Amino acid sequence: MGQAPKTVKDYIRTIVDFPHEGIMFRDVTTLFADPRGFRMCVDQLLHPYTGQRIDKVVGLEARGFILGGAVAHQLGTGFVPIRKKGKLPHTTISQEYQLEYGEAIVEIHDDAIEPGETILLVDDLLATGGTAEAGIKLIERLGGQIVGCAFVVDLPELGGRDRLQGLGFDIHALCAFDGL
Amino acid sequence: MGQAPKTVKDYIRTIVDFPHEGIMFRDVTTLFADPRGFRMCVDQLLHPYTGQRIDKVVGLEARGFILGGAVAHQLGTGFVPIRKKGKLPHTTISQEYQLEYGEAIVEIHDDAIEPGETILLVDDLLATGGTAEAGIKLIERLGGQIVGCAFVVDLPELGGRDRLQGLGFDIHALCAFDGL
Repeated sequence: MGQAPKTVKDYIRTIVDFPHEGIMFRDVTTLFADPRGFRMCVDQLLHPYTGQRIDKVVGLEARGFILGGAVAHQLGTGFVPIRKKGKLPHTTISQEYQLEYGEAIVEIHDDAIEPGETILLVDDLLATGGTAEAGIKLIERLGGQIVGCAFVVDLPELGGRDRLQGLGFDIHALCAFDGL
Repeated sequence: MGQAPKTVKDYIRTIVDFPHEGIMFRDVTTLFADPRGFRMCVDQLLHPYTGQRIDKVVGLEARGFILGGAVAHQLGTGFVPIRKKGKLPHTTISQEYQLEYGEAIVEIHDDAIEPGETILLVDDLLATGGTAEAGIKLIERLGGQIVGCAFVVDLPELGGRDRLQGLGFDIHALCAFDGL
């Protein structure tokens, strides 16, 4: 009668009141730091897309870069970053999105995706879906076809899943947490 | 009589005057976006460490996250981020270092490395070596043993290689560019 093996969710650490009071921050660094956890996470992120053609993996700055690098490596594809404004050195297209207070802008190199390429978007966490939706728009503006959007953590009460599924996208998350 | 296969260096794009006049920015996004380039880059980064025990891969924010995720995945290890001040949610230790004008601070979670763990540090580019040295100090303060520091690009005229080798570290870079 051994213990049940740890799930992806079991490796995630919750930090109370980060970055500010009232937020339960879901910290994936403890998942990524564990060899079994990290491997399991990458495998499970890719599981629904087995047999589908994926030309490129796109990751959102900054934790999406860690995942995206590993996922692209496992698939044998290239990796494309979506970054905050001003970080990418070549010509970009940009997309604004709403934050709780104010706005933010993300960018992608305008030659990073060829029209018709199939894309898997990855990030660590789906909350309101604002950043992910901005990323989707950037990919589609370059002619990329989104195969799916894969996240480690879903916070369903923040509405991101409903929002992105409402736009017709396939959303895959490895685990969900209640609350903010 | 075919063309010679592209090297890692051939995939890197040079952007003139980014982020400011006089800088030749070595843009690795074109390397990472290419499936063959990205795979070759990860394979060559790891080549010198074949047969050595590596417990964890540490990557420097932000492009080091893309590489580090892929390298950790290939090795079957965990990945640990070193981030700019204020980004990591749990308790951290921090290290200051000099920039051209002013100072910067990087941090690591204080429980991210166990004493005696063997560490490979990865980043995209070695310039003055300031950030890498700060990263090395953080790893050593937690008791980690650095097996090597692996970079895609070395800018030897900026002195980072000499500086880190002078401290006794093994430095591996896939290619070098002249000038700044």
